Amino acid sequence: MNYFIEHKPLNYDGSQLQSLFTYKNFGLKGESIVVFRGSCRVEQNEMVDLEDVLAKDWIYSEDMLHFIVEHFEMDLEKTVIRQRLLMATIKEVLEGQGVKTLMRSGDDLYEDKNKLSVSIATLSPVSSMIHCGLNVSNANTPIPTVGLKNLGIEDVLAFGERVAQRYCTEVQSIRLARCKVRGVC
Amino acid sequence: MNYFIEHKPLNYDGSQLQSLFTYKNFGLKGESIVVFRGSCRVEQNEMVDLEDVLAKDWIYSEDMLHFIVEHFEMDLEKTVIRQRLLMATIKEVLEGQGVKTLMRSGDDLYEDKNKLSVSIATLSPVSSMIHCGLNVSNANTPIPTVGLKNLGIEDVLAFGERVAQRYCTEVQSIRLARCKVRGVC
Amino acid sequence: MNYFIEHKPLNYDGSQLQSLFTYKNFGLKGESIVVFRGSCRVEQNEMVDLEDVLAKDWIYSEDMLHFIVEHFEMDLEKTVIRQRLLMATIKEVLEGQGVKTLMRSGDDLYEDKNKLSVSIATLSPVSSMIHCGLNVSNANTPIPTVGLKNLGIEDVLAFGERVAQRYCTEVQSIRLARCKVRGVC
Amino acid sequence: MNYFIEHKPLNYDGSQLQSLFTYKNFGLKGESIVVFRGSCRVEQNEMVDLEDVLAKDWIYSEDMLHFIVEHFEMDLEKTVIRQRLLMATIKEVLEGQGVKTLMRSGDDLYEDKNKLSVSIATLSPVSSMIHCGLNVSNANTPIPTVGLKNLGIEDVLAFGERVAQRYCTEVQSIRLARCKVRGVC
Amino acid sequence: MNYFIEHKPLNYDGSQLQSLFTYKNFGLKGESIVVFRGSCRVEQNEMVDLEDVLAKDWIYSEDMLHFIVEHFEMDLEKTVIRQRLLMATIKEVLEGQGVKTLMRSGDDLYEDKNKLSVSIATLSPVSSMIHCGLNVSNANTPIPTVGLKNLGIEDVLAFGERVAQRYCTEVQSIRLARCKVRGVC
Amino acid sequence: MNYFIEHKPLNYDGSQLQSLFTYKNFGLKGESIVVFRGSCRVEQNEMVDLEDVLAKDWIYSEDMLHFIVEHFEMDLEKTVIRQRLLMATIKEVLEGQGVKTLMRSGDDLYEDKNKLSVSIATLSPVSSMIHCGLNVSNANTPIPTVGLKNLGIEDVLAFGERVAQRYCTEVQSIRLARCKVRGVC
Repeated sequence: MNYFIEHKPLNYDGSQLQSLFTYKNFGLKGESIVVFRGSCRVEQNEMVDLEDVLAKDWIYSEDMLHFIVEHFEMDLEKTVIRQRLLMATIKEVLEGQGVKTLMRSGDDLYEDKNKLSVSIATLSPVSSMIHCGLNVSNANTPIPTVGLKNLGIEDVLAFGERVAQRYCTEVQSIRLARCKVRGVC
Repeated sequence: MNYFIEHKPLNYDGSQLQSLFTYKNFGLKGESIVVFRGSCRVEQNEMVDLEDVLAKDWIYSEDMLHFIVEHFEMDLEKTVIRQRLLMATIKEVLEGQGVKTLMRSGDDLYEDKNKLSVSIATLSPVSSMIHCGLNVSNANTPIPTVGLKNLGIEDVLAFGERVAQRYCTEVQSIRLARCKVRGVC
Repeated sequence: MNYFIEHKPLNYDGSQLQSLFTYKNFGLKGESIVVFRGSCRVEQNEMVDLEDVLAKDWIYSEDMLHFIVEHFEMDLEKTVIRQRLLMATIKEVLEGQGVKTLMRSGDDLYEDKNKLSVSIATLSPVSSMIHCGLNVSNANTPIPTVGLKNLGIEDVLAFGERVAQRYCTEVQSIRLARCKVRGVC
Repeated sequence: MNYFIEHKPLNYDGSQLQSLFTYKNFGLKGESIVVFRGSCRVEQNEMVDLEDVLAKDWIYSEDMLHFIVEHFEMDLEKTVIRQRLLMATIKEVLEGQGVKTLMRSGDDLYEDKNKLSVSIATLSPVSSMIHCGLNVSNANTPIPTVGLKNLGIEDVLAFGERVAQRYCTEVQSIRLARCKVRGVC
Repeated sequence: MNYFIEHKPLNYDGSQLQSLFTYKNFGLKGESIVVFRGSCRVEQNEMVDLEDVLAKDWIYSEDMLHFIVEHFEMDLEKTVIRQRLLMATIKEVLEGQGVKTLMRSGDDLYEDKNKLSVSIATLSPVSSMIHCGLNVSNANTPIPTVGLKNLGIEDVLAFGERVAQRYCTEVQSIRLARCKVRGVC
Repeated sequence: MNYFIEHKPLNYDGSQLQSLFTYKNFGLKGESIVVFRGSCRVEQNEMVDLEDVLAKDWIYSEDMLHFIVEHFEMDLEKTVIRQRLLMATIKEVLEGQGVKTLMRSGDDLYEDKNKLSVSIATLSPVSSMIHCGLNVSNANTPIPTVGLKNLGIEDVLAFGERVAQRYCTEVQSIRLARCKVRGVC
């Protein structure tokens, strides 16, 4: 599994959550996580979370750090578990940078009632995919949020790279952990 | 998914990592997590982690809080991801009780260089299983450890119940998260 | 697994066989079976059974009791087996109401040469789905049919609820039956 | 999928529920169902249903018609669904012979409170397996039972062959039904 | 698994790589391989191999022998392994006709630097599919190629039938090989 | 996927076909292929191929080149397809060394009626495994055989390494080929 940091700004509108996005745009073949920064605005017809659609939730942030993950497996429940682990990982990397005030609730990260993240996992015809966006700033968001800036993270992409690196390492270590045990009765 | 708290002491010697252990002993049918407390001593021939066997590691602790999880799925990699999430969950529940000094490294929890946990995931003929043990005391362990007592956790089983509860809730929420999205291209 | 009885008439034209139909329309998250009543008219371009398309079969009934089932699994053969069991269940619930003249042939129910049912199972991008329609009346159908009215079923939706209930109970009991056995050699 | 009728008496003691039993003993390679007749006595240590073990149930019948089914798949839930369909099939074949008094409850068949069948499904290291036994006589059984003889079935093995034939045909038709549909949205 | 030889010319433009193509056009239900002959011209928007799209490769041949294979399984890696075996099989059938100069490199066949084949494997919503095209003539191809004619194969469809036959036989023998072994420790 | 060449002689008696054999003995974690040389004598009770057991075949060779492959997947049919591809690969590597007289028939390699190979694929509790042995000499074998020496292969382990290398490369390229295609309709 490899990661790529896109340094140019890239706005997320939902169309990036598409199979082979990272391969087509950044040349990474195989399992991947790509990191980029830009606004987040997903219209109703691009939303994949029907819960949001039914609640008429509106996803918007002026400036977010985005992660798009692709695993070439077709078990969506497994990918949702990976997504939860990614959220735990983001929290843990933040802790490594001194931010110890976050709480994870499912696939969301909060500081008190302020939401740091949006996230979704779904299937494409050939893979499963995760999007996670972390607010950089908390300005003008439709609900109370906190941003990485508020948490003291200055170099946002460098932080993103640390997350991507740790996620890749963990995916690899999970694979090997699966290969070192005998069965039991 | 259901949990069970066994209040009587029960020593772990590896033979508890066996399919249907919780059903046979505590009557819980289906996916389960059982929590109990007792010593941990696993002899070489009961070890399922070949890495430990090759390293001639010796698993011993006088007093541990044990979790045994059973999922009726045969994808061990998926179970290893669940195991990592369980470890992240234990750390998060500790944070909720004010313990903010732990770090997760794969399936291990540490305070500095002191290890809090042992853990393994494997397959049985009909399910996949996780064992996780957390030191209660750090006395007489073969490597530097930290125990729940050192972290200020007095009611060890109550803490275990909080973990079990949160794990069950998350397994259920993962299942539902898998059922609310449309596919993407 | 939950069921929902839609009491308002709803005509089936094939577009209801769509992932998350029940969640979007009736708010049921997770595995579900929804029951409703209305006409059935599926045009060639909405048909999912290529056998019917090739045979230029035309699916039409003035008044049917419809079941739409969604399982969040991607093994279509497994869903076809579930579909056969659903048809057997419908027959068994009818027997419980005194109707002992039906025969099941694959995913069809007959009284002599008269067909009671249409049914299909297929995959969506995120789930697998079953549609089953039972004629309420046998008037104006393109082939010889029998309807629930002919069989003496007066309260059609109440009958549908009995089927849905039993199907949900059986799905749950199947899940538990999978979790109570040791493996063999 | 093929079937075999063993005409010589063969007593069932649980050891027949073993991978490749039919291949080793009757030369049928691949998915199979074998039919034979003999007593049924399964000791506690041969039982695979832990529910029976916990309840200290004791499986005994002087004379049973036995079916052993092997599918080379590792999804036990799928095999349990097949098992339920096998039980529905047995009931349907009996109906074809004029016996219209049976009820199916999960994997059991009853005439009123009298049990006709025992059945279990489990995994072997290379396949999944079903055993089903139908009482021929109801003499000396530990619980109230009914036997095929009581139901007027004289040629027990011929009846077994009809079941086996229909089960094989349905497995094949299920396979083809999975291969004739387009996906939906 | 069955095969079909279409004797009428049929040009391949990518739209044939579609689920149930063989069932809809030639009536073969279930796993299948169809063989036909015609030109090959796949425009960018019909290409399924993103590597070709990114490299702006252009697939063209005046006259090819085409194979379209459909397996009703959703594990694309498995289908890619089948595809490699199909390419090895084509090479082996050619050897049986005296052509001993080919080399297989992944899913490509070469004589020296001259390419005999194009091939791709992908998923449809209900199955997995393979296309393989073998140049009949090497005239006017965009890269150096070799054609079956250059290799001395005169009756191209008869050769195609030999491949199809051997592929079907091997798929069947693979299925049975899976059903004749006991597990190991 | 990694390979290991064991240069010390090691006789194969069937007990090497065991999960984690390569990890335990040679330290390779994860998917692996190990190559060694030694006699081959598998007694009836160690045989995993029931076909051989039923035929009372006796596997014996004084001197063989052995390959043991382990994939951490539980789909035995998939592993059998891999095994066939391994056999095709061995033949192709031999062709690269000028040996153009072999024929593959399923999982066997022949020169005329003389058998070069034995091979089997099966499941362990945590993985799937392949053994393949190639006769080095054809002396004293119970059936007509040919050995690598007869084919002019002098450095047997170097040949084995070439096979292992190519197999590892192909497994990796198969994985990537699965990750570069869009789905079709």
